[in-house]
Amino acid sequence: MSVIAIDLGGTKVSGAVFRETGELVHREVRPVDGVGEAMGAGVAALMRGLAARAADAGDPADSVGVAVPGIFRSGTGRVWAPNIGGWEDYPLLAELSAAAPEVEVGIDSDRACYILGESWRGAARGARDAVFIAVGTGIGAGVLVDGRVLRGHGDVAGSMGWLAIGPPYREEYGACGALEYHAAGPGIARAARRLVAGDRSYRGPLRRADGAAPTTADVFEAHEAGDAVAARVLDRAVALWGMALANVVSLLDPEVVVFGGGVFGPGVRLLDRVRAEALRWGQPISMARVRVEASRLGADAGLYGAARLALGSGATGAHGGG
Amino acid sequence: MSVIAIDLGGTKVSGAVFRETGELVHREVRPVDGVGEAMGAGVAALMRGLAARAADAGDPADSVGVAVPGIFRSGTGRVWAPNIGGWEDYPLLAELSAAAPEVEVGIDSDRACYILGESWRGAARGARDAVFIAVGTGIGAGVLVDGRVLRGHGDVAGSMGWLAIGPPYREEYGACGALEYHAAGPGIARAARRLVAGDRSYRGPLRRADGAAPTTADVFEAHEAGDAVAARVLDRAVALWGMALANVVSLLDPEVVVFGGGVFGPGVRLLDRVRAEALRWGQPISMARVRVEASRLGADAGLYGAARLALGSGATGAHGGG
Repeated sequence: MSVIAIDLGGTKVSGAVFRETGELVHREVRPVDGVGEAMGAGVAALMRGLAARAADAGDPADSVGVAVPGIFRSGTGRVWAPNIGGWEDYPLLAELSAAAPEVEVGIDSDRACYILGESWRGAARGARDAVFIAVGTGIGAGVLVDGRVLRGHGDVAGSMGWLAIGPPYREEYGACGALEYHAAGPGIARAARRLVAGDRSYRGPLRRADGAAPTTADVFEAHEAGDAVAARVLDRAVALWGMALANVVSLLDPEVVVFGGGVFGPGVRLLDRVRAEALRWGQPISMARVRVEASRLGADAGLYGAARLALGSGATGAHGGG
Repeated sequence: MSVIAIDLGGTKVSGAVFRETGELVHREVRPVDGVGEAMGAGVAALMRGLAARAADAGDPADSVGVAVPGIFRSGTGRVWAPNIGGWEDYPLLAELSAAAPEVEVGIDSDRACYILGESWRGAARGARDAVFIAVGTGIGAGVLVDGRVLRGHGDVAGSMGWLAIGPPYREEYGACGALEYHAAGPGIARAARRLVAGDRSYRGPLRRADGAAPTTADVFEAHEAGDAVAARVLDRAVALWGMALANVVSLLDPEVVVFGGGVFGPGVRLLDRVRAEALRWGQPISMARVRVEASRLGADAGLYGAARLALGSGATGAHGGG
């Protein structure tokens, strides 16, 4: 048998066929087109196409795993995905189950799939207590506890962007959380922009010739080139990532924490410093033992995690618990 | 059948016989005498005595649960208990199993037992995703994830005292963690002492007539009487407890969080304010749903949790997993 994996992103949908042994044998990427039901129908069509392909190859698929950019509500089979129009409470499990009744459907959040993927074929291979910290336009965590995805009572566990990182509270935190406000990609770019605007004598690379505000990528590039403003911005980010890492480790005592997402990415060069910062704050036994790694699967972490979901370990949805 | 529960404290050992239905039918409390092997022998003797009593009553015990003030290492059956001399790595599971081979032995940390007890017969009754935050001379958490005790890779999960609560890092945090340094009982007393020492015009109740430094209990009492220094100390504690609550809720998305320990205790009068503070910082969906409760079992939480351990749900040790 084989399984189908689908990773539903904000701008594209990736699909793949995996052998039961874990080998990726075929992949497709489609741009996202449409919203709401059109998006649902597109995912169902991709799933049916991949199933037909697997059957034609003589290795039919009996299950599909889907990573969604949002929250999978395990009690109802519905999905909340803020960046897909009309997916406030979309019945994806029912739609996919109806589209291919012979295929078992498993769905979970992208961050849950990241840690399923990395613990299966990536930087956390074999770990049963592991965390994936995704830092990109937001910050979220996928958590394995004793080999199973940590869901929480309302399927919202792992909302790391909301970590409190020190008083005073500021109104700006209300939309996304204090850690995310300061330490996700947009917060890094914002901090650089403010420092550049506030220092008229600054002539470094973050004052772009075209007058545009510096991006997160600009900050990392300037840092590599020795720019002092970039160093100041990233020093602050390292301090916050370190505190956040320490908090996750002190509470969960994982075997390994994997950093990924768009910021890690270039941020992996700072990972030793993030770990050193966390060592000061965190529970000493846990911090001394935990491995801190960069994602090995990168942009494929969600796809591998969806395949892992389809294979049944840690799966939710039609599979029931892992 | 019945079960035996033992709660091993710093100054006393409590033992009880519970019916399988959960009814406590007999209890004993003994002062702690001896250290190391003498302590182990004392626990074994208490266990045998309770087993004999249960058998005499016609309802023999087939299992025992033990709550220990420290860490239970599930892989080796050994206990680390910093306040019991010679218990850096004590083979308690082997000793108790040898002392009563007919009785199954389950052991876990006191904080794990607190949440097992409260989710069985207390403020978190029936919850499968629940946290007990114990605030006393230290701060620690017992966590249930989908009905099972969160252990972590090294059995150290729930080390909440080590939460980072804001830069800058201070060397004083190295012994116990930043949150515990400021927001456990000794930190509250320390903050009051410093404020009193620094304000020569202060004539309130925290400047004790006998010249002694104010205790944590003094601070709560003075706060009830409207003392401004006590209010300042507890305002700060509420802010820290609120951030810590928010962080636990954002990461774990529990159904209920129970506050207990010596400080909650009198701190329960502040629980609404702690929750309001957490509402500002935490993940909004999780924070809006979570129940925040005071311990209902109080000083008996560990004993009830030990009984729950003996009954086999969430148990570790000779029982294997829950």
